[in-house]
Amino acid sequence: MTKALVILSGGIDSTVLLYDLIDQGYDVEAITFHYGQKHSKEISSAKATCAILDIPQKIVRLEGIEDLIHGSALIGDKDIPEGHYEDESMKSTVVANRNSIFINLAMAYAITKKIRTIAYGAHAGDHAIYPDCRPVFVERIQALAEVVDYDPLNIIVPYLHWKKQDIVKKGAELGVDFDYTWSCYKGQRLHCGRCGTCVERIEAFKLAGVEDPTKYMEVK
Amino acid sequence: MTKALVILSGGIDSTVLLYDLIDQGYDVEAITFHYGQKHSKEISSAKATCAILDIPQKIVRLEGIEDLIHGSALIGDKDIPEGHYEDESMKSTVVANRNSIFINLAMAYAITKKIRTIAYGAHAGDHAIYPDCRPVFVERIQALAEVVDYDPLNIIVPYLHWKKQDIVKKGAELGVDFDYTWSCYKGQRLHCGRCGTCVERIEAFKLAGVEDPTKYMEVK
Repeated sequence: MTKALVILSGGIDSTVLLYDLIDQGYDVEAITFHYGQKHSKEISSAKATCAILDIPQKIVRLEGIEDLIHGSALIGDKDIPEGHYEDESMKSTVVANRNSIFINLAMAYAITKKIRTIAYGAHAGDHAIYPDCRPVFVERIQALAEVVDYDPLNIIVPYLHWKKQDIVKKGAELGVDFDYTWSCYKGQRLHCGRCGTCVERIEAFKLAGVEDPTKYMEVK
Repeated sequence: MTKALVILSGGIDSTVLLYDLIDQGYDVEAITFHYGQKHSKEISSAKATCAILDIPQKIVRLEGIEDLIHGSALIGDKDIPEGHYEDESMKSTVVANRNSIFINLAMAYAITKKIRTIAYGAHAGDHAIYPDCRPVFVERIQALAEVVDYDPLNIIVPYLHWKKQDIVKKGAELGVDFDYTWSCYKGQRLHCGRCGTCVERIEAFKLAGVEDPTKYMEVK
């Protein structure tokens, strides 16, 4: 069985990816990063998923890096913008170089654990706003992964050209328990229903024709 | 003045690089990483250099990542090998994906601080042993840097094809105070004079024809 290390945030994309790779026969482990987000709802979801699936999970607390990436509204005490992902205001949710940092840390862990495949869940809906979700970013991090160690590492990004609704549909087919996924940028008891990622979540279930089990505080 | 962020370990290469960029007219800042090394002699040297030159220094304590990269003899309680860098045993000093992690964190900090140039001090002597000092690694991290943000970042590696002795010679010309550089992998009061990096340091001063101010415990 090929081992794979999945970068698991606890959101829909990486959770479905985890189920998908297990379904494909990979021997998976998960790695989850805590980087000073306003809340840890996503991380709790990621933990629950790993417990349900009984797979090893490494949780990395990046205590020292919050202020390296402090421009983002996801960290510290700035306001989370409401509205649609495509809005200019959503740029404030970009965390500087986040995915590249996570993938590079995951590569280090993979080398140490003798795992040669790393999977991450970027998808087409992310491209417009997040520089480090674009296909050109993926190509270049894959090229880097070939040379960071004596032998090449392999980064797989199966959903790169998928829409969010395709991922939801796939998840439904695989029996993903979406109750254990978290999207909302705010850390309230329920999903807010108004921030960019809630709006995207609601849309994705609708477009996928999959019943949305999420309880929202209000739907915009 | 062009701003540059220098990844400063406190060793000879990055210290000379810092002086060199100041000499070339860059407006420099330094970033120094503490990643669970056995000792902090290098970091103290880096601090002293920044104090002498009166330049801003960001020190990042990477509390959460030691166990991601724990295969290396530089971290934890494994023995440091003695001998020459070219020996097979020196591979135990490789820290998984270290430079790529540091460069990626430096890129995040640079984005946050609106600095577009990042400098690091890899040189030709590192190539054989450290995968992430090879020219092919540098090419690919430079290619990555072009796409991690909305605008390209620029990674400069001026000593990539230099030998260590050329860097020492350059440092002597620039008036670098080599007393405030640290090479030894062991964290004793003085450089041990026997580990791979001490052997390389001693050789480099000899080959450069520059007087070595370093006090060694013993010279192999």
